[in-house]
Amino acid sequence: MDVLKLRILTDGKNLGNGILKVDGFINHQVDPQLMDECGRELAARFSQMKLTKVLTAEISGIAPALTTALHLGVPVVYARKQKPITMPNEVFLTLAPSHTKGRTVELIVSPEYLGKAERVLIIDDFLASGQTILGLARLAQTAGAQVVGVGAVIEKSFEGGRKMLESLGVPIESLVIIENMEDGKIIFAD
Amino acid sequence: MDVLKLRILTDGKNLGNGILKVDGFINHQVDPQLMDECGRELAARFSQMKLTKVLTAEISGIAPALTTALHLGVPVVYARKQKPITMPNEVFLTLAPSHTKGRTVELIVSPEYLGKAERVLIIDDFLASGQTILGLARLAQTAGAQVVGVGAVIEKSFEGGRKMLESLGVPIESLVIIENMEDGKIIFAD
Repeated sequence: MDVLKLRILTDGKNLGNGILKVDGFINHQVDPQLMDECGRELAARFSQMKLTKVLTAEISGIAPALTTALHLGVPVVYARKQKPITMPNEVFLTLAPSHTKGRTVELIVSPEYLGKAERVLIIDDFLASGQTILGLARLAQTAGAQVVGVGAVIEKSFEGGRKMLESLGVPIESLVIIENMEDGKIIFAD
Repeated sequence: MDVLKLRILTDGKNLGNGILKVDGFINHQVDPQLMDECGRELAARFSQMKLTKVLTAEISGIAPALTTALHLGVPVVYARKQKPITMPNEVFLTLAPSHTKGRTVELIVSPEYLGKAERVLIIDDFLASGQTILGLARLAQTAGAQVVGVGAVIEKSFEGGRKMLESLGVPIESLVIIENMEDGKIIFAD
C-alpha cells in the first residue's frame, strides 16, 4: 500500500531497537482518512470469508479494526486490558507478553460478544512478535469461535510474528511489511 | 438521534447507580455503522467552526472521535492514560477523577500533536460528570490551543456535567440526553 509506505517514510520514526514510532498518524494522533483507506483495503482482502466479527485489542488496534469492520459491515470487539465494571464476572481471559511494554498484559473479552458461531477476523495495528494476535486467537478459540484470518496495518517481519502465527492455518495479510530497521533505516519488503 | 435512542433502549442496560451499560454497541463491542452515523451527526453540528483537530481520551472515546474526525476531515488525537515509550519526556499531563473507575487517571498528550494554532473539538462517548472532558480542555489550554466545542454521544444530564463545562463558554452537543435512570428506567429528555 504505497500511500502508507510513503507516510511511514515521511512521518514515521525509527527509534532503534526495532521500535517504529507512528504516533503522528496511527497511535496517538490518528489520520482518519488514512485509517479508513487501511480499513477498506483490509476488508477487501477478506471480503469473501463470510466473517461475522472483527476482533482486536485496545488501545491502538481500535482505529484500524473499526474502519475494517465498517467496510465489512460487521461488529468489532476490542479485548480490554482491565475488566470494566460493566463486564460480567465470568470472562474469557488470556495473558500476552507485550514487547513494547516489557511486561505481560491481560486480554479480556466478555462471553456476551464472542460466541461459538462466530467467524472472526483478527486485526491489529502491528504484527511484530505476534504475541498479542496469538492471545486474541486463544480468546476466540476459548469462545468456540473460528479464527478465519489475521490482518495488520504494519508488519515487522524481522520479529518473526508470521512464523509464530502459522499454527493458526489462516491467511495473514499486512498492508506494508518492514523487513529491516537496522542503522536507523526503514526498509520495506518488495 | 432516534436510531441511537432505540439502540440504547434495545441493547443498553441500566445497571443501577447511574451506570449505563452500552458494551454491546459502543464500549467493548462496537457497531461501526452506528458509530459512523454518530460521527457524521457530530461533525455536522460543528462543521462551521473551522476545526483543526478532534481531541478525545482513550479508550472508549476513540471510536466516536475517529468517525467524527473522518467526517470533518481533520486528525484526531487521543490522550493516553499511560505514557508510551514512543512519547517524548516533556508532555502535557493532567489528572482527572474517573467516576466509573473510582480513582484518578492521568491524561497525557504529546506537544508534537497539540499546538497553539489548533482549534479543538473535544469528543467523548459519555458526558456524565464532565471531569474527563474538563481534563481534556485543560490539556488543550495548556498547549495554547483553543477549545471551540464539546460533543458527546450520550449525555447523562443528572450527573451535572453540562453545568461543569459552562465555564468553557463553547457549544456542547450530545446526540441523546438521558435525564433519569432511577428505578431501572432509562428516560430521555425531549
